[in-house]
This record gives sequence, C-alpha cells and structure tokens, in this order.
Amino acid sequence: MISSIKRFLLGRPLKSHELGEHKLIKRKALAILSSDALSSVAYGPEQMLIVLATVGTAAFWYSIPIAAGVLVLLTALILSYRQIIFAYPNGGGAYVVSKNNLGVNAGLIAGGSLLVDYILTVAVSVSAGTDAITSAFPLLHNYNVEIAITFVLFITILNLRGITESASILAYPVYLFVLALLILIGAAIYNILTGVVPPDLHPPIGADVAGISLFILLRTFASGSSALTGVEAISNAIPNFKDPAPNNAAKTLIMMGFLLALLFSGIVYLAYYYGISPNVKETVVSQIAKETFGHNFMYFFIQGTTALILILAANTGYSAFPLLAVNLAKDKFISRIFLVRGDRLGYSNGIIILGIASIILIVIFHAKTEHLIPLYAIGVFIPFTLSQSGMIVKWIREKPQGWIPKLTVNAIGAFISFIVTMIFFLTKFTRVWSVFVFLPIIIFVFHRIRKHYEDVGDELRLTASKTVIPIEGNIIIVPVAGMTRVVESSLNYAKSLSPNRIIAVYIAFDKENEKEFEEKWEKWQPDVRLVTLYSYYRSIINPLTKFIDTIQHKASESNYQVTVVIPQFIPKRGWHNILHNQSGIMIRSFLLFRKNVVVATVPYHLKK
Amino acid sequence: MISSIKRFLLGRPLKSHELGEHKLIKRKALAILSSDALSSVAYGPEQMLIVLATVGTAAFWYSIPIAAGVLVLLTALILSYRQIIFAYPNGGGAYVVSKNNLGVNAGLIAGGSLLVDYILTVAVSVSAGTDAITSAFPLLHNYNVEIAITFVLFITILNLRGITESASILAYPVYLFVLALLILIGAAIYNILTGVVPPDLHPPIGADVAGISLFILLRTFASGSSALTGVEAISNAIPNFKDPAPNNAAKTLIMMGFLLALLFSGIVYLAYYYGISPNVKETVVSQIAKETFGHNFMYFFIQGTTALILILAANTGYSAFPLLAVNLAKDKFISRIFLVRGDRLGYSNGIIILGIASIILIVIFHAKTEHLIPLYAIGVFIPFTLSQSGMIVKWIREKPQGWIPKLTVNAIGAFISFIVTMIFFLTKFTRVWSVFVFLPIIIFVFHRIRKHYEDVGDELRLTASKTVIPIEGNIIIVPVAGMTRVVESSLNYAKSLSPNRIIAVYIAFDKENEKEFEEKWEKWQPDVRLVTLYSYYRSIINPLTKFIDTIQHKASESNYQVTVVIPQFIPKRGWHNILHNQSGIMIRSFLLFRKNVVVATVPYHLKK
Repeated sequence: MISSIKRFLLGRPLKSHELGEHKLIKRKALAILSSDALSSVAYGPEQMLIVLATVGTAAFWYSIPIAAGVLVLLTALILSYRQIIFAYPNGGGAYVVSKNNLGVNAGLIAGGSLLVDYILTVAVSVSAGTDAITSAFPLLHNYNVEIAITFVLFITILNLRGITESASILAYPVYLFVLALLILIGAAIYNILTGVVPPDLHPPIGADVAGISLFILLRTFASGSSALTGVEAISNAIPNFKDPAPNNAAKTLIMMGFLLALLFSGIVYLAYYYGISPNVKETVVSQIAKETFGHNFMYFFIQGTTALILILAANTGYSAFPLLAVNLAKDKFISRIFLVRGDRLGYSNGIIILGIASIILIVIFHAKTEHLIPLYAIGVFIPFTLSQSGMIVKWIREKPQGWIPKLTVNAIGAFISFIVTMIFFLTKFTRVWSVFVFLPIIIFVFHRIRKHYEDVGDELRLTASKTVIPIEGNIIIVPVAGMTRVVESSLNYAKSLSPNRIIAVYIAFDKENEKEFEEKWEKWQPDVRLVTLYSYYRSIINPLTKFIDTIQHKASESNYQVTVVIPQFIPKRGWHNILHNQSGIMIRSFLLFRKNVVVATVPYHLKK
Repeated sequence: MISSIKRFLLGRPLKSHELGEHKLIKRKALAILSSDALSSVAYGPEQMLIVLATVGTAAFWYSIPIAAGVLVLLTALILSYRQIIFAYPNGGGAYVVSKNNLGVNAGLIAGGSLLVDYILTVAVSVSAGTDAITSAFPLLHNYNVEIAITFVLFITILNLRGITESASILAYPVYLFVLALLILIGAAIYNILTGVVPPDLHPPIGADVAGISLFILLRTFASGSSALTGVEAISNAIPNFKDPAPNNAAKTLIMMGFLLALLFSGIVYLAYYYGISPNVKETVVSQIAKETFGHNFMYFFIQGTTALILILAANTGYSAFPLLAVNLAKDKFISRIFLVRGDRLGYSNGIIILGIASIILIVIFHAKTEHLIPLYAIGVFIPFTLSQSGMIVKWIREKPQGWIPKLTVNAIGAFISFIVTMIFFLTKFTRVWSVFVFLPIIIFVFHRIRKHYEDVGDELRLTASKTVIPIEGNIIIVPVAGMTRVVESSLNYAKSLSPNRIIAVYIAFDKENEKEFEEKWEKWQPDVRLVTLYSYYRSIINPLTKFIDTIQHKASESNYQVTVVIPQFIPKRGWHNILHNQSGIMIRSFLLFRKNVVVATVPYHLKK
C-alpha cells in the first residue's frame, strides 16, 4: 500500500537511460533556476529604503545611485559566472571553483555556506510567500506554519517526480510574474510620461540630506544586494541543461541577468518617483501597484504572482542542493547516500533531506523571515567572494589568451562581493554571528567524514600482502526455545552444513524445566548435542553470548568459524509480529554488531 | 550509556529466585492496593450533591439515606470479594471469576472493561491530583498536561523498580491521607458536639422536597457509588501477598472496607450538617476543611494529602493492569509479551504499555477528568456485576457447606451492581455510549489473537506424520558490491560451506562497468562463478530476487537449500552507519520476509 501511494505521488520508476530526456531546454531552465533571483526584487529595493528611512525620506534619492552600484555588482557577477560556466562545464559553482583554485578548505567554506544557504532559501522563500498570501487573506494568518509546511511538501514531491515535470508546472508562474512586473513598470512609466503622476512626490536627486553617512550608504548597498541572491544557481546546474550545456547555460544566465536588472531598476525608480516609504503592513511593490492600478484585478494579479514566485523560488534550492551534495559526496565530505538516484532519477535523498531541514527551520522560526534574510544573504556572498577569488587565481595560473580582461572582471566581482560581505558583518553582526559557529563545525564534520571514508577504504582494499586463511571447518550453534517445527527445520539446515559440529543451546529460567527439556531432547534429537544454560536474570543474550565466546575462543585456535543459526518463524501478516517475542531479531543484532560470528537466519514461513 | 541510565533509574537486575522477597505484607498492601478506593471519597460524596443540587439545596438531606444505600452496596461488594479471595486464591478478579463460571465471553467482557479501566484509573487519578495541585498554585495551571505526564512517568519508573520499593514510598501518603481525614472528621464532630457549629445550617431529614423523583434518587445513588471504584483491586492481586496470601488479602480487604466506609460516611454527614453546596471552584472536602480549621496549616495538610493520594491512586492501576494482562496472556487472548518479567521482576511490558496509554489519554483529554469519570465508573461496575453473577453460578453448581448465605451475599451484590450499571446507562448515556463500541472491538481482537496462537501452535507442533526431508546440499549466493576485503571474507566463508556451489552476483548500473567488473573478477576469483545482472531501474532488490527465484526453483527440484551470504561491514561507531549504503540490511529483511532462503550475514568489523 505504501508502495502504491509512492507510485501515485511520484509516478512510475524511470530507467537509467531515460536520464537524457530530462535535460532542460533554455526556456524551462530560465524558469526553474531564476525564480530565486527574480523573486528577490520583491524585497531587495524595499531593504534599501528601510535603511535610508532611518535617516529620513529626503535620503530616498540615494537609492538611485546605490541601485546603479548594485547593477554594477550584478553585471560583475553575471560576467564572472559566465566565465565560470565555460571554465567548469560540468557544473562548477562556488564549491568546485574555490576548491580547485584556493584549496580544499576554501572550497569547504563555500560548500558548507551554500549547503546551509539552500535550506534557508527554501525556508525564507516559502515563508515570505506564505506571508504574502496570508496578508491578502488575513483569516489564514494563524496557519502560517501549516501553510508553509504544505508548500514545502508540495515542492518536495514535485522534485521527487523529476525535474522536467516540475519545470512544466513551474514555468508559468515565473513568466507570469515577469509579465506582471513588466506591465506594472510599463503602465507606471506611461502614467509618468503622460503627466498622470505628479512630478513632485519625490525629493530631487542630489538634495542635501542631514545625517547621511558613508556607513548608512554602504549598509544600503549591502541591503540592496540581497536582491542578487540566487544568481549563482545556473552555474551550479550546468549538467541539467540540454547540450551544448555550457552555451545554453551561459545564454540563460545573461537572459536572467537582463531580466533581473530590468525589474530591479524599474522597481527602484518607481519607488523613488512615487515617493514611497517602506511600511511594515504593505510591501513597496504592493504600494506601487496600488498607486498605478488602484485596488483592482491588476493589483491582485501582481500580488498573486509575487506570492507564487516567492514560494517557487524555494525550488531553486531543490535544484541546487542535491547537485552540490553530489559534488561533496563524490569528494567524500558527506555521506554517499547523496549519490544515489531515486526511482525518478532525481537525487532523492538530497531532495528529502532539504525538505525536512527546511520544515524544521520553518517550525523553529514560526515561518517568520525577517531575522533570516541577513544570514541568508551573507551565506550567498561568502561563496560569491570565494569563487571569484578562485577565478583570479585560475587566470593568473593558467594565463590563457586574453586573460587580463577576464581577470579584471573577476577581480572587480571578488572585490565588491568581499566588501558586501564585510559590510554585512559590520552592520548586521547580531543577525549573522552564527556563521562563525556553524561554519567551523560543518568544516570539522566534513573532514571527519572524509577521514572515515579514507580509513575504511584503506582497510577494505585488497592487498597482496594480506591474504585470507581458508576456514578449516564450521561449528554451528543453534539457540533453541522449544521443540517445534521451526527448530526442526533449523537443525535440518545445520546438519546439511556441518553434521558433526552442531550445538543446540537452550536457556532455562528454572531448574525443573531444565531437566525436563534435556530428557525430552535426548529422545527427539539424540544425535544433536544440547547445552542448557541457566539464566538467573531471565536474559537470553547474556548467557548465550558468554557461551558463544567460549566456543569461539576454542574454534579460532584451529581456524574454525562459528555460525549461529537462528530459527525464526515469519508470521503471515505484519501485525502478528507483536504477538511473538522476537528474541531472534534481538540475538541477531547483538551478535552481529558485537561478535565476530556469522549469523544465519532460517525462516519458517507460517501458512496461517 | 542507555544501559547505565536504565540502571540508575531502575536499580540492579534481580535474580529470579529473589521474587519471594518482594511479596507484600498487609500494612504495605493496604497502602498500595487501596489508594484508588480511598481516594474516591475525595469526589464520591460531591458527585451525589451535584445531582441533588439540580433539585435544590432542600434535597441535600437525601444524601444521608442514599449514602446508607451506598454503604450497603460497599458491604455487599466487600463480603462478595472476600468470598472470591478464598475461592480463587491465585488472584481471581472479575476476568477469572466470570470466565470460569459464566463462560469465555463474559470473562472477556469483564477483562476488556478492566483493561481499559485501569488505563482510565491512571489518567483520571493523575489528572484529578494535578488539578488539585494546580488549583492550590494557580501559576502552574497552564502546565496541567506536562505535570500529569511527569507524574505518570514517575509512577511508571517506581513500578519498574519493583513493587515493594514502590510500596515503601507510597505507604506514607496513603496513611497521611487517612490520618488527615480522621482528624478532620474528629475535629468537626467535636465542634458539632460542643455547639461551635450552629445546628441550623442544614434542612431537616425527612423534609418535603418539590421536584424530587425516583430517577433523581437513583442517579444520586449511582453517582455516589463512584466512590467504590477500586475495591476490586485486592482480589486481583492476591499472588502479591505474603503467605498465607488469601488470609492476608481478606484481612486487608476488610480493613480497607472499614476505612472507606468510615471516611465516606464522615464526609457525607459533615457535608450535610454544614449545609455545603457543591461548587465548581472548591471541592466539598476543601469546604469542610475550611469551615472546620480555617485557612491554616491543617487546611493545606488535608488538601495536600488529598492531592497526593489521588495521584498515587494511579498506582492501583499499575498493580492490577500487569496482573490482569498476565491472566489474559496465559489464556492467549493478548500478546505473550505481557508474560515476560523484567530486570526487576515486575511485568515490565504491562507497566510500560499502561504508562504510554494513560499518557495518550491525558494528552487527548488535556488532563480534564470530568467527562471520563462516568466511563470509568461504568467500566468498574460491569465487571462487578459479572464477577458476582459468576459467584452465584459457582455456588449453585458446587453447593459447598453453607452455600445459601454465600449465594445470598453475592446475589445482593450482583443485583445492586447490575442496577447501578443500568442507572449509569439510563442517566448518563451520552458519556458512556462508547462502551458499546470499544467492548465489541476488544472482544473481537481477543478472539483473533487467540485464533492466531492456536493456528501457530498447530502449525509448529511436531507430529509423527510430518518429518523433514534431509537437505541434499547447499547452494550459496553471495551478492557482491565490489572487490574488497569484506567480499573476500564472505567468499572465504562460503567456500568453507559448499566450495563448488557458490554464485557471486553483481548488480551493474551501466554496461561498461559490467564488462570491466567481469574481467577483474576473472583474475581475482577464477574459481568462483560470477553472474552480473543489469539493473534498469537502479534497484538492487528486484534483479537479485528474480535471480534467486530462478536458482531456488532449480534447487528445490533436487532438494537443495539456497543460502544467501551477505557481506556486511560493521563500522566501529554507530554514527558511521549513516555514511554507508546499508543495502545488506535491506536485502536481508526483504529476502527473509518474502522468500524461503536462509540469509547468513558475514560481519566484517572495521577497526577504525
């Protein structure tokens, strides 16, 4: 039944060679991989205005030059990641680029940051999207956490079904959001040009502002750059693209950068021109939409698509997290369970773990995003800085044709990213200090795991020097609980393996019973030696293991192997198991994990 | 570590022959087994007044004659149970008495009612005790559920430690409660006799009351009889008494009956004389105590011991539930896991399951007792009626010396209990209808379990007609995931069992890898046949089981046994397990439960 629920939710299993069919064409890739970046325009401009508002509304004109700075940063990032795509056509991303050029630990800092960051992507985006919905429908406000969890489950299932199918369903909302914002910007500019909007709603550019400081301006810049979270997604996901993958990925990246720049500039400009102040109860985008269209269908269309894209932005995490996990697992820094492809060819374990982790974050933070956004942004800018620094090293080391302009691009990107990272630490330390706790822990764990895999590999590797000594013979121990057909079938099996070296062991709880059992046994199985052990504490395991230890000690002297044959009857229905003492299972686990004996279970399948 | 926590909480394990030391002397038995019954006086009189209050305060004088009726019922029950103790010295209780005299289904109705009722005992008593505490300390009121659960856990641990030790700790509160109430009654009567209490606080006995009806009086009687819940506990627990067990149990029962009658009459009389009305915010006992002593130390002493005995009344459930479960399990109506004695010689499984079930009830009902008390009372009176009817049948059937007075005692008891049961159904149907749902279900399940055990017994019994055919030889299948020392040790083992009939099976996920593996294998293990299977869906189980089916089909024709030898490496530390695909464990469980092959696991213990 569990199996059929799984089939209903996930669809039929796919053969391995069907993998190719699920590669992404550019149009779908743009939708899947850029929802995170594009949805950032819903909060990025607002973050800038919130900082400037601490000085006063007169300072709002600074948003225009600072936005230009953010666009420069965006351009630098896009160009830099375009170079990374061609340099690392198998899916680079910050982890691979940093590791190859700056060393393992730099790679692990980038990888660790991103691994946690993708979980934050899911938690933050879904929570923000839920907030947007429940703001529109206040009745639902008490169910924020439940709604957010439902969305996470929904996206998780979509991703387990496979990436192309999720793309089909995800492409529409992303394009609708872009369309909605383009209509908004177009209509608003038309209104401005036709003079419908009065030109005196905003302070003039260049006006003197009391109390403005470099610190405030830098902080505004850092806040605005939170609109750039997600631009790295494409470079991580190159193997998902249809061939030629790098070219398609590069084109998709440029397209995304162009859309992001357009929407970001549009929103910043309109917010400035309309003289909009950030407001706890209504988002900047909502205010612009209401000014432009009033409280009608177009307003709800814009709010609706905004909410939808925020929720679907979480999907970027689902594309990126499993692929990063695969890269880390290939290098043995995390468990190899992340390498296994599921029924539908997605990396199911990564998808499931991401879903669970983000649900935990949502529950802990009650689906409230405001405290998570700075952590989320810094978790993106650390890998930005590292991967671009890595590219600098690469160009200097390899010096390919025309490397100086390439170096310049990456150097600018690295410099700005580093500055943004530092500004976050300086201006928002109370929100981001935990990075200094979890990053060292994560990197320590990565190294411990790697060490374990290397140790195991060394130990299991076949070497010419160590050869196994053939086993001389087998001693079979059969723990028996009574005289039944189950025991009979186990003894029958034991006899077929080693007819002369079978010891049946009976654990007695009282002395009378012990004698009676020995007498009956003598009649039933005269050719099988019976040892009865008296258990003072009603434990089966203790006397049994002591006995096995003794036998094994003797056996190992002459290179004999001890096999414990466990009679086990298997009830026909699962619930019948609670009606029987499952001592067999307990004995088996105990012996297997503690002792060096082979444990063979002889099943006796009940017919009724 | 888990083991040392267990030792700290439960104490060292006890040897089986230490059982005798834990038998109860009368003084301790009275404390352990009567806390449920005695604590009932804290709510029984109040329940009567609540019903009479629906007519008016003038009707309160009826509590005196009705209480006399309850005392008659109490006397009948005590005398009847005294007869049961001697007739069933091995611990009778309603289940055994009903089953032996009225048939299996009557026994199961009694047993099923009591099994559920003991869970209710724990949930109701602990919740009521918690209410008493949180009423005294209103700050704790929001934590009712948590406090109640803590108490259940505490009592569960005490019971897992063993029954005598729990008796030592439980004896004091019970005797303190009795002492507290005796002081209260004594002081109040002294006040009445010395004329400190005005004699006109109450309506005269025999006064006319408008609106009184037989229905109301019967309902009052039924409510008052809820003070008798728990009187059956002693007759169920005879084997726990020191020898001569029946005599000691009978004396304890009489003592308990005497105390209960005294406290019950005292509270009813004082409530009447003081003219006390039931009040949602303050219990009747609390009102009497405040009238008598004022708001001083003695008041808190009475309230405190009342709260304590209510919580400890839950302990009656812990004494009775496991013993009843043992009786049912011996008759194969419930799982035999209830027959196992734990480290400290208590029936741990019964104790643990009772604890869990009552915690679930507490959580579901938010530790609120008012809706549960009628259900609890009817769950007691059904077995009362059945066991006394059973005794009637027994006397008629056996006709021992002087059977007619004995029959009369039980007949009166049976009749009154039956009437009380009927009154509950008639007057409180909305609270007790669920009995008609869960009793049939429980009895159906009992029979299903019995049927299963009988079927299994038949199937496993050795019969002369069916003898096993010796196995001709063994075919060993070794699923291999690579060429490592783990696989090497498994092959070495397989060779020792059946050198010429080993098949290594390799599941390949891509064609290239398949060929490469075959070539390497040929060099490494030229004498072991390798079969490679290509898996389209990346599943290991499916192709492997298909292959095993084919081999087994051939093997069974010539009476060969198939053994699947699974190489398994055991990491040194538990957490390492998450770093490895545990395919071995999956394969093993699947084969064992679905296929008729022996599964032998060859452990390879990692050193690092």
